[in-house]
Amino acid sequence: MKYTIAVIPGDGIGPEVVNQAKKALDAVAEMYDHVFLYQEAQMGACAIERFGKPLPEETIAICKGADAILFGAIGDPKYDSDPGAKVRPEQGLLQLRQALGLFCNTRPVKAFDSLIKNSPLKREIIIGTDIIIYRELTGGIYSGKKETSTDGLTAFDISSYTVEEISRITHIAFKASQSRRKKVTLIDKANVLETSRLWRKTVTEIAKQYKDVVLEYLYIEHAARQLIINPKQFDIILTENLFGDIISDEASVISGSIGLLASSSIGPENALFEPIHGSFSTAKGKDTANPIGSILSAGMLLEYLGLHEEAGAIERAVEKSLILGIMTQDIKGKNKYPASTSNVGDFIADYI
Amino acid sequence: MKYTIAVIPGDGIGPEVVNQAKKALDAVAEMYDHVFLYQEAQMGACAIERFGKPLPEETIAICKGADAILFGAIGDPKYDSDPGAKVRPEQGLLQLRQALGLFCNTRPVKAFDSLIKNSPLKREIIIGTDIIIYRELTGGIYSGKKETSTDGLTAFDISSYTVEEISRITHIAFKASQSRRKKVTLIDKANVLETSRLWRKTVTEIAKQYKDVVLEYLYIEHAARQLIINPKQFDIILTENLFGDIISDEASVISGSIGLLASSSIGPENALFEPIHGSFSTAKGKDTANPIGSILSAGMLLEYLGLHEEAGAIERAVEKSLILGIMTQDIKGKNKYPASTSNVGDFIADYI
Ligand SMILES: CC(C)[C@H](C(=O)O)[C@@H](O)C(=O)O
Ligand SMILES: CC(C)[C@H](C(=O)O)[C@@H](O)C(=O)O
Repeated sequence: MKYTIAVIPGDGIGPEVVNQAKKALDAVAEMYDHVFLYQEAQMGACAIERFGKPLPEETIAICKGADAILFGAIGDPKYDSDPGAKVRPEQGLLQLRQALGLFCNTRPVKAFDSLIKNSPLKREIIIGTDIIIYRELTGGIYSGKKETSTDGLTAFDISSYTVEEISRITHIAFKASQSRRKKVTLIDKANVLETSRLWRKTVTEIAKQYKDVVLEYLYIEHAARQLIINPKQFDIILTENLFGDIISDEASVISGSIGLLASSSIGPENALFEPIHGSFSTAKGKDTANPIGSILSAGMLLEYLGLHEEAGAIERAVEKSLILGIMTQDIKGKNKYPASTSNVGDFIADYI
Repeated sequence: MKYTIAVIPGDGIGPEVVNQAKKALDAVAEMYDHVFLYQEAQMGACAIERFGKPLPEETIAICKGADAILFGAIGDPKYDSDPGAKVRPEQGLLQLRQALGLFCNTRPVKAFDSLIKNSPLKREIIIGTDIIIYRELTGGIYSGKKETSTDGLTAFDISSYTVEEISRITHIAFKASQSRRKKVTLIDKANVLETSRLWRKTVTEIAKQYKDVVLEYLYIEHAARQLIINPKQFDIILTENLFGDIISDEASVISGSIGLLASSSIGPENALFEPIHGSFSTAKGKDTANPIGSILSAGMLLEYLGLHEEAGAIERAVEKSLILGIMTQDIKGKNKYPASTSNVGDFIADYI
């Protein structure tokens, strides 16, 4: 089969990790007789430099026309230190999520057996952990009105949610849990926030349609603690945009390195796949970044295209590289002859 | 000297832990020749039952008239499962914070040597950790307008901050860091939130007045990860209300039990001291809850009253109890002959 894949390398280590994911896809194409047509597009700091804005129209058009989107990373420290900057790289990603309605962000978190010693957490705490986080990605405080007063003395951000926004991702999360351990944990702050109470009410109502699934509630601050003291209690985590951002980055400590984690962001007609690590600009161009998050994102992309066997081939190749210790310095350690970004990519592509 | 202390036992395990803190204060009074006059006041679920509201006027009056306030815990599961409830226990605490303007919440987090094995984190990660979290406690999304539409289909919460609100706690945090390791980490989400950008701008400006202090910035999701992979990098953490709630609960994993942590909430004229653990209603009345968070809160209260030696006596007694293993089941383990709540309180009072 023939598929068009929009490729957005983005900033920092984005381009180099995306290159490895493409190698893995090329290997899959050869093995399983597919054709992947890559269409490269710009977004982020690099797009600001070239086009004066973080998300050119052309990028949106390429993404809309593609079967799936493979994305690297976004952000540049230059903009972080300037709270007054009008244009920022991250706006590109936020605008793309809105333009394509990518409301359902999925982030799987596992303790990889071969990497358990890399986690700051004790072995017995994390062994066997297997969580999928469903984060609502287009609503909440990310997309609400935000403003600083003209005198610069006051600022506000509005968080809002509708029953419809909550419902569509809730159904997806409950359905996913039915083929897993049948437990959904809703993370909110219902003792303080009105939006959280709407989440709790809506999700409780929908849960009645999934009688085989257990629904639990947890306040965000308790979740941030429980994720560390007892991560195995979680199967599916369901939450709103900001809490999902926090919880999924925090959860990466379980896997031993944030460089290992992949994510999908799915809307009614489009789907984007990216590692959850950021642009990590200090490592840019050094061929030291971990490409596995990006390669596993390509695996999720294949899954989305219905290519299950092909996705499995990527996952097995990644596991093999970890077992054999063909790993970048973030997990191997700087002094232990780590592999480079491209070494890892080459090995995985060859193994496929 | 003679001091009036407002005592709010609150809900769940609140009353039993506050009783132990009072024992410790009584011991201090005897040793150092002070008089502590306790004035008991109601707040939370218990107040809803008796007065129909979580914060009776009388409680505010007692608190305003006292030299300091000692508080237990708030909340009842009965209200959590009902997102439609108009009156909720937590409103009592939120209203009291507003009524007294308790804007500066301080939460110290330490790895206690004798308890390092209790943490889910590895020894080498946490040993020597010593952080104080400064959380802004009256602004942000907690106190902004919040509403659900009359058709029940949309809800919103507004987060807002003023330069003045940010400035007053920032000065306190920077001053505190000057007698410590001279580093302040501001936690925000400046790549998305307008309020965070106002925080970043204001704090950056104020930092110029404290040339001996290093200021660092961290996005909330990165902070949630860094707190686990490298907690020793932090000295003073400065942050807004919601992020402070999340980060401080999460940080409790470093100490081995949330039952150990104390906090102060200080305003222009009043100050409240409470453990950071919640009401934990399933343990209510069982004499198993850890009273140390509450006893250390009493220690912070003495510090606030200028009674430094007396505060030190409480801290030393707590450390002794931990070294001798006179500990409740949360840290000792259920099967290892844990001490009861009152055992621990008696030991600490005797030792003082
Ligand atoms: C880059 C940033 C705007 C983004 C977010 O906060 O959503 C990132 O942290 C993520 O989680 O994808
Ligand atoms: C009880 C609740 C409203 C409160 C908060 O969120 O501030 C609590 O979690 C805390 O941290 O003191």
